[in-house]
Amino acid sequence: MNRPLIYGNTPTFLHASSVAKDLAQAANYHATIYGVPWEGAVTWGAYTGCELGPKVIRQCSERYSGYLPELDDIDVLSHYSLADAGDVSTIPADVPATMETIQSFASSLWASGTFPVGLGGDHGITYPVVRALGETTGKKIGIIHIDAHFDNNDESMGDEFGRGSPFARMYEYEQVRNESLVHLGIHGPRNKAVNGRSAKEAGAVTITIDKIRSAPDLKAFAKEVYDIAADGTDEVYLSICSDILDYAYNPGGPADANGLHPEQLLTLIHEFGSYGVCGMDFVEVYPQQDQNDFSSHFVTLAILYVLAGRLKKEGKA
Amino acid sequence: MNRPLIYGNTPTFLHASSVAKDLAQAANYHATIYGVPWEGAVTWGAYTGCELGPKVIRQCSERYSGYLPELDDIDVLSHYSLADAGDVSTIPADVPATMETIQSFASSLWASGTFPVGLGGDHGITYPVVRALGETTGKKIGIIHIDAHFDNNDESMGDEFGRGSPFARMYEYEQVRNESLVHLGIHGPRNKAVNGRSAKEAGAVTITIDKIRSAPDLKAFAKEVYDIAADGTDEVYLSICSDILDYAYNPGGPADANGLHPEQLLTLIHEFGSYGVCGMDFVEVYPQQDQNDFSSHFVTLAILYVLAGRLKKEGKA
Amino acid sequence: MNRPLIYGNTPTFLHASSVAKDLAQAANYHATIYGVPWEGAVTWGAYTGCELGPKVIRQCSERYSGYLPELDDIDVLSHYSLADAGDVSTIPADVPATMETIQSFASSLWASGTFPVGLGGDHGITYPVVRALGETTGKKIGIIHIDAHFDNNDESMGDEFGRGSPFARMYEYEQVRNESLVHLGIHGPRNKAVNGRSAKEAGAVTITIDKIRSAPDLKAFAKEVYDIAADGTDEVYLSICSDILDYAYNPGGPADANGLHPEQLLTLIHEFGSYGVCGMDFVEVYPQQDQNDFSSHFVTLAILYVLAGRLKKEGKA
Amino acid sequence: MNRPLIYGNTPTFLHASSVAKDLAQAANYHATIYGVPWEGAVTWGAYTGCELGPKVIRQCSERYSGYLPELDDIDVLSHYSLADAGDVSTIPADVPATMETIQSFASSLWASGTFPVGLGGDHGITYPVVRALGETTGKKIGIIHIDAHFDNNDESMGDEFGRGSPFARMYEYEQVRNESLVHLGIHGPRNKAVNGRSAKEAGAVTITIDKIRSAPDLKAFAKEVYDIAADGTDEVYLSICSDILDYAYNPGGPADANGLHPEQLLTLIHEFGSYGVCGMDFVEVYPQQDQNDFSSHFVTLAILYVLAGRLKKEGKA
Amino acid sequence: MNRPLIYGNTPTFLHASSVAKDLAQAANYHATIYGVPWEGAVTWGAYTGCELGPKVIRQCSERYSGYLPELDDIDVLSHYSLADAGDVSTIPADVPATMETIQSFASSLWASGTFPVGLGGDHGITYPVVRALGETTGKKIGIIHIDAHFDNNDESMGDEFGRGSPFARMYEYEQVRNESLVHLGIHGPRNKAVNGRSAKEAGAVTITIDKIRSAPDLKAFAKEVYDIAADGTDEVYLSICSDILDYAYNPGGPADANGLHPEQLLTLIHEFGSYGVCGMDFVEVYPQQDQNDFSSHFVTLAILYVLAGRLKKEGKA
Amino acid sequence: MNRPLIYGNTPTFLHASSVAKDLAQAANYHATIYGVPWEGAVTWGAYTGCELGPKVIRQCSERYSGYLPELDDIDVLSHYSLADAGDVSTIPADVPATMETIQSFASSLWASGTFPVGLGGDHGITYPVVRALGETTGKKIGIIHIDAHFDNNDESMGDEFGRGSPFARMYEYEQVRNESLVHLGIHGPRNKAVNGRSAKEAGAVTITIDKIRSAPDLKAFAKEVYDIAADGTDEVYLSICSDILDYAYNPGGPADANGLHPEQLLTLIHEFGSYGVCGMDFVEVYPQQDQNDFSSHFVTLAILYVLAGRLKKEGKA
Repeated sequence: MNRPLIYGNTPTFLHASSVAKDLAQAANYHATIYGVPWEGAVTWGAYTGCELGPKVIRQCSERYSGYLPELDDIDVLSHYSLADAGDVSTIPADVPATMETIQSFASSLWASGTFPVGLGGDHGITYPVVRALGETTGKKIGIIHIDAHFDNNDESMGDEFGRGSPFARMYEYEQVRNESLVHLGIHGPRNKAVNGRSAKEAGAVTITIDKIRSAPDLKAFAKEVYDIAADGTDEVYLSICSDILDYAYNPGGPADANGLHPEQLLTLIHEFGSYGVCGMDFVEVYPQQDQNDFSSHFVTLAILYVLAGRLKKEGKA
Repeated sequence: MNRPLIYGNTPTFLHASSVAKDLAQAANYHATIYGVPWEGAVTWGAYTGCELGPKVIRQCSERYSGYLPELDDIDVLSHYSLADAGDVSTIPADVPATMETIQSFASSLWASGTFPVGLGGDHGITYPVVRALGETTGKKIGIIHIDAHFDNNDESMGDEFGRGSPFARMYEYEQVRNESLVHLGIHGPRNKAVNGRSAKEAGAVTITIDKIRSAPDLKAFAKEVYDIAADGTDEVYLSICSDILDYAYNPGGPADANGLHPEQLLTLIHEFGSYGVCGMDFVEVYPQQDQNDFSSHFVTLAILYVLAGRLKKEGKA
Repeated sequence: MNRPLIYGNTPTFLHASSVAKDLAQAANYHATIYGVPWEGAVTWGAYTGCELGPKVIRQCSERYSGYLPELDDIDVLSHYSLADAGDVSTIPADVPATMETIQSFASSLWASGTFPVGLGGDHGITYPVVRALGETTGKKIGIIHIDAHFDNNDESMGDEFGRGSPFARMYEYEQVRNESLVHLGIHGPRNKAVNGRSAKEAGAVTITIDKIRSAPDLKAFAKEVYDIAADGTDEVYLSICSDILDYAYNPGGPADANGLHPEQLLTLIHEFGSYGVCGMDFVEVYPQQDQNDFSSHFVTLAILYVLAGRLKKEGKA
Repeated sequence: MNRPLIYGNTPTFLHASSVAKDLAQAANYHATIYGVPWEGAVTWGAYTGCELGPKVIRQCSERYSGYLPELDDIDVLSHYSLADAGDVSTIPADVPATMETIQSFASSLWASGTFPVGLGGDHGITYPVVRALGETTGKKIGIIHIDAHFDNNDESMGDEFGRGSPFARMYEYEQVRNESLVHLGIHGPRNKAVNGRSAKEAGAVTITIDKIRSAPDLKAFAKEVYDIAADGTDEVYLSICSDILDYAYNPGGPADANGLHPEQLLTLIHEFGSYGVCGMDFVEVYPQQDQNDFSSHFVTLAILYVLAGRLKKEGKA
Repeated sequence: MNRPLIYGNTPTFLHASSVAKDLAQAANYHATIYGVPWEGAVTWGAYTGCELGPKVIRQCSERYSGYLPELDDIDVLSHYSLADAGDVSTIPADVPATMETIQSFASSLWASGTFPVGLGGDHGITYPVVRALGETTGKKIGIIHIDAHFDNNDESMGDEFGRGSPFARMYEYEQVRNESLVHLGIHGPRNKAVNGRSAKEAGAVTITIDKIRSAPDLKAFAKEVYDIAADGTDEVYLSICSDILDYAYNPGGPADANGLHPEQLLTLIHEFGSYGVCGMDFVEVYPQQDQNDFSSHFVTLAILYVLAGRLKKEGKA
Repeated sequence: MNRPLIYGNTPTFLHASSVAKDLAQAANYHATIYGVPWEGAVTWGAYTGCELGPKVIRQCSERYSGYLPELDDIDVLSHYSLADAGDVSTIPADVPATMETIQSFASSLWASGTFPVGLGGDHGITYPVVRALGETTGKKIGIIHIDAHFDNNDESMGDEFGRGSPFARMYEYEQVRNESLVHLGIHGPRNKAVNGRSAKEAGAVTITIDKIRSAPDLKAFAKEVYDIAADGTDEVYLSICSDILDYAYNPGGPADANGLHPEQLLTLIHEFGSYGVCGMDFVEVYPQQDQNDFSSHFVTLAILYVLAGRLKKEGKA
C-alpha cells in the first residue's frame, strides 16, 4: 500500500498530502490539518498524555473515507483537497517559546488562505492560533468555544498560557470581540463561580448545555449562536474541547458526565460550518486512558462534518 | 494543601466538614453525607466490591466545586454547608447486627434535622435508613425509588436484608405508605414477573422507563411522580440505584442496557429536590469494574443537583 | 442448579431447550436460537474474535428472565417456548464449504416452521441464511438490514462471502426483491461512495440514521420502513449489525460514533416484530475488546424485544 | 453445590467451616482464617482498596484443594481442619477503636489455641494482632517480617497505627524482643534512610533481598533467619506483605520492581512453617488494580505452604 | 506485502506455506502447523476463549523471523520448510464427532512424515492426536507432558474427552506405554490428591516442578527426563500446556503461580527437540484475558526452540 | 508541598533541580537527567507512544528517595546532586533536524562535565547523543548496548536515524571503536540473521542472553564485558533498551519473552557503573500499553543502581 506518511510511519490525516516541508504549499489545498503535540500542566487526576493526540488521531483517520451517506450522500474528499502540515515543534520546558512557535506556524497557514484545522494538545494551543489569525489578517474575530468548561482562569498553576487559561488571554486580546466570544455547552462543577463571573465581566456570552437541550430546533439554535459570534466581527473561529461530550463518548478524558451526545455536537458544528467559520481546532484527546481510541476516532468525524458544512455553504452539497 | 479528611487520607465528600466524631454536630449543617461500605450477597456475574463506593466517591468528589452554571449559575456550596459523618461500621458476617447499626447511625442524623445523603454500599442499606426515619420521627413516608429493578424479592439468597429485597421490607413496614412508594424507571429482564406482581399486590406504584421517555415534558412529569409520593405522607425519601443509567454511563455495574441518560436522571432528581425530599441515598457503585471511575464521579453531580433543587424550593436559586 | 447446557458447560440461550441433537425438533418451539461462530477476514484494526459471539452471548443470557415490565408487563417466556439448536460447524480454511453448511443448517430450521434467531459471527453469515429461506420456501423476500454500513462490497479481500459483501450477494439473488431491501441506519465514513451507488443501482432502499432521528414519531416511522420491506414480498427478514449502536453502547466493535441509542434500536425492532418478521440475526459481537461484555448482554434484550413484538402481533400482549 | 459461605455468597476460605458466629469454636480447628478489611491512609499513587482483600482472596481460594504434589505429595486438608472466623468489624473513621476491635478479635483466636491466619487489609493490622498475642499469652515474641519496606515510620500521615508504622509500634512494645524482629527482603527506594536507622537503633535485624539472593542454599538460609527470630523468644510470628514479590507477580500493588519470585518466597515460608511459627498474616492485596486477581490467588498458595511446613514439623509430611 | 494467508486475512504461522487444501502436501515440508480451535467445558472462573488460540498465535507469529542469535546464531527457517495445514473443523455440540475429526486430521499429517505441531484449543485435543499417531503407525508411544496439572480426571463435567481428562484416556490406550508417560512440572493445589494417585496407579511418572528447580544442570536433567519417555517406546511426543509458566508470563490463563520462567521451559524443550520428538502441541492459550497477547507471542518462540533442537539432532546447528 | 517542577506541573526527575533554562548550570551537578520525547517510525503492532516516556518516568520518580538498603545501605542522593535539564525539543516531521537538536543539546551536557542520563524516546536518540560525545570531547568511545535486539538495520522504513538503526550509524562513526561496542543480551526472533552478520562484519561484539545466564558469577562476568568496552577507548557509554527485560517486567513494550529478570539487569549495570561509564540512556518505555506504569517505575531504579555504582567507584559506598 502506497500511503502518504507525515512522519515516521504515521499516515497523514485522512489520506491528505503532506506539506510539512513547505507550509506555503498549503495555499493549494482547501483545508490543512496540523498537530500541536503539547501538554502543559497536567489536569487533576491521572489524565495526561494529550500530546499523543495528533499521532493517534491520524492513525485512526486512516480507516475512513470522506463519504457521509447521512448528509445527503456527500463525499467530502471528492470536492475538497486536504493537506497535512505535520506537527508544530514544542519545547516542554519553555512555554512562551512554544506559544510563539505555535503562533508562527499558524500564521503561515492563515497567510496561505487554506482552512486550518488544529489537532491538540491541550486547550492552551488555541490562544496562539487565534492570535496568529489576528496578527496576520488584522481582522476582528468572533469565537464559538464548545466545551464543558470556561477555561478562562487567570492562570493555570502559575502559567498564563496553561490549559485552563486560553480564554482569559482571549478576553485581553483586542482583536477578539468579547461580545462575539460564545462559551457554548458549559456545564458541571469542574467550573468555579469565578469562571462564570469572569466571562460576564469580560462581556463574553455563556450558553450552557441546558440551553442547547431545551432548543426546540437544534439547527435554528445553531444559527442564533453563529449570529452572536458573527455580529461585529470579520471571522468566526471554532474551538472544540473533547469534554463537551459525555464521558461515555469520550472515555479518555477527565470524567465529565452530563455532556452532549455525538449527534448533537455533530449537528451543531455542521451548521456552523455551513454558515462559515475560518478555521477550527479539536483539543484534549487522551489516548492513554481510552483503550479503544474512541475519542481519536471521533475527531475524523467532527472534521468531516465541519467540512461538509463548508461545502453546503459553497453550494456543492 | 490543608484539606479536610474523613479517615486515613481520604478527603471528606466535596470539602465537607467532618462530624464523624460527634454525629450530633450534623445539626449545624444543611446536609450531611455518610457512607455505608456494605455488600451482602454478590449479584450475578463478577460485579462485586460496592463497599468501596463511599471511599472512591469521596476521592472523586475532591475535584469539584459546588457551582452549576447550567442551573441558573447556582453555587450550591455558597448557600449550603456540608458535613461528612464518615462511614457506618459494618460486620460482614452478621447482617442483622449491621442493619441495626445502620439504623442507629441514620437515626442520629434524622434526629439532628440535617438533610442526610447516604452513599452505598448495596441497596440493602436503604431499608434500615428508612426505618430509622420512621422510628425517629413517627412520620408517614413516601418513597421515590429510581432503579432498573424492583429490588422487592422476598429474600436474596436466604437473606431478608439482601440487596434484592429492601422494598419487600418496605412493603411490610407500616410507616411507609405503599401507595406512595414509586418504583420509577423499572425496565429489563433482570426483573422477574413475580417482582411486578409483588409491587402490585403491595399497592406500590410502578412507572417504567418507557413512561419517562414518552413524557412530553420531563419537568411536569417529575411533578406528577412527586405528587404520588407526597400524597398522604409527611415526608418523601429518594433512593437512587446506579443501574438506572445505561451501562455506557455506569460501566462498573452489571450490564443493564436501555437505561436513562445522565441528563434525564439529573433533571428528574433536581425537580424532586425542588418539591422537597427529606433525605436521599445513591447506591451500588462498583469501582472495581469501572476503570476511569465514571460512576463515582457521577455521584457528586447527582447530589449537587438534588441540593440545587432544595435551594430552589427555599427561594435561594 | 440443573440448567440446560448447549455444549461444554455453556448454557443454552436464555434457558432454552437444546435441540442440537435433532434440529427437526425445532418444530415444537416458537423460536429457535442458533450460533454461527464464524469470522472470515478480520476487519480494519484490532477488532477480531466475533466467532466467540455465540458462546459469550449465551453465557450472558443466563442472567435474564423473559419479563419486560416496560412493555406492558409482558413475560415473553410465559407465552413462547425457546429452543437452542447449537452452533453451525465451520471450517475456517474453507469459506464456500462453510457457507453451504450454514445454508443447510438454516434450511432445517426454516423447514421446521420455528422462528429462527441467528447469533453471529460476522455479517457474512446472513447471505446463506437468507438463501436457505429462499430455497426452502420458494418465497419472495424483503429484508430490513439495520447497520451503520452497507456491507455490499463486491468482494471483501477477495472473498465473495466476506463480512463486507453479503448484500452484494443479496442483490444478485433472485428471490430477494431489491426494492424491498432496506439499508436502515446507514452512516459514517467507513462507508465509501461506491457503496451508496451500488445500493442505488441495485434498486435497494437506503434510509440513513438522520432520517431515523428526524422522525417525529418513531413507531409510525417503523411502520413506513416495514411497509417498504413487505411490499411485493412474502416474508420480511431482519438482520442487525451491532455497530448500528454508538460505540459507547457497543464497545467491543470497531469504533463507530454517531450511532443509535439502545432505546431507539429496541423501539424499531419491537415494532418490526409486531408487524411480522419471519426470522432474524444479530451479528458482529466482539467479546475480546469488550471488557464488561456490554454488547453480548444487549443481544438478549434485542431478541426479547422482537419476540415481544411477535406476541403483540398474535394478540397475546 | 452445597458450599460453606462466610457472608453473603462469599465462600469461606478454602472450604473451611465457618466459626464466625462463635469464635470459641476455633479451638476445634487446626488453623483459623480471619479477614481484616481495613485500609487507613491510602499510599502514594492510585493504589487503594485493600479492604477488598479478604473477600476476593476467599473467592479465589474456592478453586483450590489442599494438595501440593510438588511438596512430597502432601494433602494439607487431609491432615488439617480449617475454620474461617469471618472478618473483624472496622470503623473507618475511628482508628483506635478499630485497632482495639482487631486486638480483641485476635485475642479470642490466640486464646483458642488455633493457628490464626490473618488476611489484610493494610499492614497496620499486624500490630494489634501481635499485641493480642502478647496480652493473651504473656509470652516473648519474635517476628519474621517479609516485605520490601521497613514499615517503621514513626507515624503515617499523623496516624500512629497507619500502614507505614506497625513496626515502629512493635519496637516500643515490651513483649516483642527487637533483636528477634527480622525485617526480611528489604529493598528499594520507597524506603528512606531514616527507616534503616530506626531499625538499627531499635536493635531490629535487617536482612535485605540481596542477602536472600546470594544465599547458596535457600533452605539453610531460612534456618538461620528463623534462629534469629526464635532466639530468646517463646513464639515466632510471621507477617508477609505482598510487595515482597516483584511487580510482575503482584500487579495490584504499588509498582515495586526487583522483588522475590514466587518460588523463593514459598520456599522461605514453608521452611519457617516447618521450624514453627505461631501465627501469620498476609497483607496489602489490592484487587482493584489486578485485573486477573493474581495476588489474591497467590495468597491461598502462601498459606498452604506454611501449613505444609507445620505438618512437616509435626512429622505428618 | 504479499504474505501467505491461511484463512480470511489471517496469516499462516510464521510465513509458512498453506497446505490447507491438500494435507498430503505436508509431506513436502519439514514441519507442519495446524490449529484446533476447540474449547469443551469452560474451566473454573472467567477463563474462556481458547478456541481463539490458533488465530491469535498465527497473527502474532507474523512479527518473527526464524533467527535465534542466543542459540549459536541458528536461523531455523533457513534449514527448515514450514507448512500450515489450517484448522481442524470442530462441532461444539458434538464432542465425539469432533474428537474423530481431530484424529482423522492428525492421521493425515502423521502419515505424511512431516513434524506436526498442534496449536490448541484446550488440552482435550491431545488425546485424538496421540491416538492418530498410534493408529497410523502402530508404534509404541512415550509422552513428555509439561503442565502444572495432571489433566487425568476420569471425566470433566461428564465429558470423557474434556480438557481435564486427556491423560486418563492415554492411560487406557494400549499404544501409550504408561511408564514412559512423564507428567513434568506438576505443581499447585488446582490438582487434587486423586490425580496423583491415578498417575501412580497407571504407572505414569510424575516429576514435580521442585525437581526441575533443584536440578544442578538443567540440560543433563532434560536428558534424564527424555530417557524415561524413550525407554521402551518407538516415539516420544511432546505436549505443553501454557500454565506451566508462572502467571506473570502467561497472563491470559487461569492464575497459576509458582510456575516455570520462560528460559527454563525453553531450555527443556530445546533439549527434548535435540534428542528427538516426533511431534508436539501447545495448548490452552486464552487471548481474551491477555491484553498484550503475551502467551500467543510466546508460542512462536517455543516452537522455534523445539525445531532448533531438531536441527541440532540432525547436525545442522 | 513545594516540589521542583520541570515543565507544566510535571516534577523534575527524582526531586532534581531544574537547569532547563540554562544547561551550562549542569556543571554544578553530579548527574543530569534529560528527556527526548521522540518516536520515529512506529514498530510492528500497536506499540506506540514512547515520546510519553520522559514525562511519565518523571511522574513515577516522585515516589522515591535515593536510599537503597540492599546496596550496603547507600543513600545516593546524600552523596550526589541531581539536575534535570528538561526535554529536547523535537520536530516529528523533520528527522535530521531533530537529530541535530538532540546532538546539540547533548553536547552542552557533555561539555559541562556532568554525568548525563537520557530518557527515551525510541532507540534512535542514542546515536546523536554518542556523536555529541565524540564531537565535543574528541575521545574514542566504547559502548555497552543492553538490548534484546541489535538495532543495527541499515535503515528503518527508509529512515537512516530510525529506532532500528542507531548501531548501524555507530558502526560508521569513526570515534566509536567497533571492537569495543558490545551488544549485550541479544535474543529472540525479532532479530534477523542479517543483523548478526552486520555486527560481525562491523567488528562489534555480540554477547547473547544465554551467555549472561550461564555465567557462574554475574559480577565477574560484568567485569569481562566492561573490559571489552574499555579496551582501546577513552570512555564507555551505556545504553539500555527496556525490552532486555522479559515482557512480564516490561508490559508496555513489544512482547519479548525470554528476557532478563530485573535483579540480573540491575546487578549488571551497577557493576558497569562501578567500573566507570561516562553517561547513559534508558529508552523505549511505552506508558500507553502499561496500565500500572511498571516500566516507568523501573527506570528510577535503574538510574539509581548505576549512580550507586559510580559512588562505589569513588569510594563513597
